Amino acid sequence: MTAFCRKRAGSILLRSGIVVLGRWIGLWTALSGLMAVTGAAELPVPESSQAKNVILMIADGCGIEAYTLARWVKGKPLAVDTMQVALVRTHSSDSVITDSAPAATAYATGVQTSNDFISVGPKAKVLSVLEPPAADLSYRPLATVLEGAKLLGKSTGIVVTCRVTHATPAAFLAHVPDRDDEQNIMTQIVHQNADVVLGGGRELLLPKPLGGKRTDDRDLTRVLKARGYQMPKTRQELDQITGGKVFGLFAQGHMAPEIDRPLLAPDEPHLEEMTQKAIQLLHTDPDGFFLMVEGSQIDWACHANDPAYLVQEMLMFDRAVELAVKFARQDRQTLVIVVSDHATGGVSLGNMGPLSKGNVPVEAVVEPIRRMKCSFAALWKKLEVDPTAQRLQEVLRDQWGIELTAQQASELLTEAKRGAPYLLAALCQRYTVVGWTTHGHTGGDVPLFTWGPGSPKGVLGSAQVGQAIAQALGLDMEKLNARLFAEPTKLLPDVKVQLLPDTSTTGKKLMSSEKPPSKTSEEQRTAEVTEPQMVRLQYGTKSVELPLQENLLKIGDQTFELEGLSLYVPQTKRLYVPMQVFRWLTDSPVELPPITRSHSHER
Amino acid sequence: MTAFCRKRAGSILLRSGIVVLGRWIGLWTALSGLMAVTGAAELPVPESSQAKNVILMIADGCGIEAYTLARWVKGKPLAVDTMQVALVRTHSSDSVITDSAPAATAYATGVQTSNDFISVGPKAKVLSVLEPPAADLSYRPLATVLEGAKLLGKSTGIVVTCRVTHATPAAFLAHVPDRDDEQNIMTQIVHQNADVVLGGGRELLLPKPLGGKRTDDRDLTRVLKARGYQMPKTRQELDQITGGKVFGLFAQGHMAPEIDRPLLAPDEPHLEEMTQKAIQLLHTDPDGFFLMVEGSQIDWACHANDPAYLVQEMLMFDRAVELAVKFARQDRQTLVIVVSDHATGGVSLGNMGPLSKGNVPVEAVVEPIRRMKCSFAALWKKLEVDPTAQRLQEVLRDQWGIELTAQQASELLTEAKRGAPYLLAALCQRYTVVGWTTHGHTGGDVPLFTWGPGSPKGVLGSAQVGQAIAQALGLDMEKLNARLFAEPTKLLPDVKVQLLPDTSTTGKKLMSSEKPPSKTSEEQRTAEVTEPQMVRLQYGTKSVELPLQENLLKIGDQTFELEGLSLYVPQTKRLYVPMQVFRWLTDSPVELPPITRSHSHER
Repeated sequence: MTAFCRKRAGSILLRSGIVVLGRWIGLWTALSGLMAVTGAAELPVPESSQAKNVILMIADGCGIEAYTLARWVKGKPLAVDTMQVALVRTHSSDSVITDSAPAATAYATGVQTSNDFISVGPKAKVLSVLEPPAADLSYRPLATVLEGAKLLGKSTGIVVTCRVTHATPAAFLAHVPDRDDEQNIMTQIVHQNADVVLGGGRELLLPKPLGGKRTDDRDLTRVLKARGYQMPKTRQELDQITGGKVFGLFAQGHMAPEIDRPLLAPDEPHLEEMTQKAIQLLHTDPDGFFLMVEGSQIDWACHANDPAYLVQEMLMFDRAVELAVKFARQDRQTLVIVVSDHATGGVSLGNMGPLSKGNVPVEAVVEPIRRMKCSFAALWKKLEVDPTAQRLQEVLRDQWGIELTAQQASELLTEAKRGAPYLLAALCQRYTVVGWTTHGHTGGDVPLFTWGPGSPKGVLGSAQVGQAIAQALGLDMEKLNARLFAEPTKLLPDVKVQLLPDTSTTGKKLMSSEKPPSKTSEEQRTAEVTEPQMVRLQYGTKSVELPLQENLLKIGDQTFELEGLSLYVPQTKRLYVPMQVFRWLTDSPVELPPITRSHSHER
Repeated sequence: MTAFCRKRAGSILLRSGIVVLGRWIGLWTALSGLMAVTGAAELPVPESSQAKNVILMIADGCGIEAYTLARWVKGKPLAVDTMQVALVRTHSSDSVITDSAPAATAYATGVQTSNDFISVGPKAKVLSVLEPPAADLSYRPLATVLEGAKLLGKSTGIVVTCRVTHATPAAFLAHVPDRDDEQNIMTQIVHQNADVVLGGGRELLLPKPLGGKRTDDRDLTRVLKARGYQMPKTRQELDQITGGKVFGLFAQGHMAPEIDRPLLAPDEPHLEEMTQKAIQLLHTDPDGFFLMVEGSQIDWACHANDPAYLVQEMLMFDRAVELAVKFARQDRQTLVIVVSDHATGGVSLGNMGPLSKGNVPVEAVVEPIRRMKCSFAALWKKLEVDPTAQRLQEVLRDQWGIELTAQQASELLTEAKRGAPYLLAALCQRYTVVGWTTHGHTGGDVPLFTWGPGSPKGVLGSAQVGQAIAQALGLDMEKLNARLFAEPTKLLPDVKVQLLPDTSTTGKKLMSSEKPPSKTSEEQRTAEVTEPQMVRLQYGTKSVELPLQENLLKIGDQTFELEGLSLYVPQTKRLYVPMQVFRWLTDSPVELPPITRSHSHER
């Protein structure tokens, strides 16, 4: 009852009407969506701009209407519904519609780059509205917030359901101008010393003769073992791990879609389980941690225009987000960012089909999707063995719960010529309210959800997301870049650089074992060795060898681990090594620059 | 140059590399999107939860990718890019996909209602996930924030480019369970005493014999004149107004699409001009103001899947937003909310066409749209006179800058059978990167942008937006509802209620002039008079008459203006009148309840 009513209780005017209003407005406040914004009963979000831990969760390819769709199927609020909101402009430096590589690079490094580029600087050719980048930025490795967190003494990890060498995770742990160069990406990932790496892509750890897909002869499992990694291959093996470093690849290639797991891959751990294990292992570090978690296959479900695949991926991602936010709410020093890298498929709740006409009940959204038992790809596999109209009728009855006439089935098979799963995508729109505009990415802004100290706000460029993470961690990315990726000849003009085709500590390159290096001048060698495997630096009487893509330094018979990778860029013929290397080359005391932000205003 | 470099200037290691990094990271920070988030150079947003003024700007039907598209065509940041961000769940009480009526009702009243309902309570039948509303909520008029602002002594206004009786503006000024009941909506709007009403829909002010479209005999222009309204009909007339109340309807029906204005309606003021005039007139009120501005035709452009029409509407809306935010930044007591009521068309930047493949330059997005000189509807008008392949070729060459072969043109005309403008929509996708999923609304969450004190945050139910506005204005909506919409028999059980078919002060109803009321009992009268025009209340020896849909009270020969409307709901046979009415009916001192929020915790 309101104060107003009590105060005027003597008035003849005030009887029942207001009480009723009080009840229904209260009711409708609670029901006004699926829930009210939470927060009343809990402590306010910490206002500090600094976070001890950062958990970045990337919903790959997830447009805004995919969230809404997932919420309806879930039947209650999503984990992101309790978070604060910002928006991100997603374009890359050379395309209005980005791909995952530059999108993840922007989040990982705070710098926008070209399509297909993994944490290296952009091509000179950029969108007409942008200024061209400085010449020496192109192809230059860009330090990532994960690399920075590591140098701050924090634990680091990535959790994905694709190959760990796929564009999004790669951008946090590798530097290559071609997202498809997954072999080199894996070499770099293995040499980054991240504490937790969970996902798929085991085939890239071993050369072909040993059952892998590598075309060189590196056995990276030996490197991992030597560095003390545990390497679980199943949920059960992951469960048993309670501490230490983990490199868990649970599939040769990508992990299975959530919707197909029960049949295809029951032993693969779910994203939620991997996220939980990662937080469990990382959060004990007193210096804090950085974790990137990706809902990798949301994107692929949208490429396929497959709503049931999409929803299952979304709901599993949602469970991982819920875990992360729950941890952050308890911990109170953790920034959680949930963001898409771009949208895919142009998904909408509403299409040209009959179910979208007039009032749309919840059941019209939810039930057709709940009836679908497998992904389009898995369904098509069931058809391929016997691509007849009758088989199509049977499969769709069994897997989608819909009835086609023999003629409809026959017509659909005829239409299927341009690509089988696309047929299912088109068909599916008649039986759901989910619409699609494309099998590719789209260029719209994407939502960004945050909880915790240092949350970015407003409408952000994608690179600003990476900058915000760096800021929350207290990282000065400029200094970090200088420290991790120094150009020897710029810092020591008299240094001699020799690029060698041969050797690595982890296995000999096949090419190099066949062609021993000839003894030409440095210039000629550089020109000849287009894919060098190693670099030798000589300064005065001192000489060190640095296997490329690795974090190792060899001096005589001794091998040391460096704090970052040695990288050679064939396109620019530039070499980048950790500044640490110069400790071994010079006699003067080399102090490594700090990588934290200065609080003065000297910049 | 960094502090780090200066401090170690003696070191042999530090030469040029870092300087270059400093430059490019700075460059790319600035370029990381089209601009960095502003705010560094200006005062922080006021943190108060109370606003003197509220400007609510509704981008009707605007999905998130429409903003992105508009930004590319604009070539620089949108006004919303400088604001804070939230998200809104858009469903109505009875449909996953809302229409504009309940969406605007939620924003206007803080209560979610049924599709087609204009600021009255929802039907009993609601989405299966929602609890049914209280029985006496159904069809009950719901007080709006505009009505509340008026009672707080603030000035009020609405600015739209549709008929002012269309769903969105109607929800702020009228209460009817049918958005198409625009005749009654106009009667109510006219009797709301808003200070500024600008838009289209002049035809609903006058009965048919006087050149309007009303089927009753009300000449509402007489009411407006009697109340001191200025009634400009052109930009020039609007320009000359410098103070006082304005009811400016610049078109008989809807105003013209921006893209077609140069030819069709050069004298209609643009949304930007109307917004500027409204702020100019309203902001002088020392008590503050509430203004609702709608980009009405963004929705229609999306229904048509017409990207050029869409972009022109967006860019004009953007200019209005820029004005509002500029005012708010200077004023510092104004809350600006920019929000869509729902998304329409499933628009995306990217489609199945050839321009969306591979890297997409800015020009592929912008140039086809810039070449389009009119809306699909206007283009189709040019074709209708001579629907031949040759004419289609000519028109498309002239209006879109594209070349069709005769055969293509001929095939297109054949396809056009299902509805001409839809043909253009399908055709258009081949020549742009804009994709669409539907000609209807979609159900996804929409962005909400804010600047100023009392800004809502996070993921909101649509009703929470209305509640946030009420809160910012200091309104207690429960008390406001009790005060504006009292049920006489509930508050005064002994009152006699007579519903009469006859009369109004603004003109006689045609029906009533033919059929004078018969003298039956009250019960019978209520049953008979399904569309009463007037109600008589008798209490003891006192009697008053209240013309329905109006804010007038007649006692003997005297007429008084009330602070709200008298409304009768045929569906529930309930009568609602301002509590003020009881001042005239009873002898006891009637104190009107305050409508501001109590700061105690008694609720």
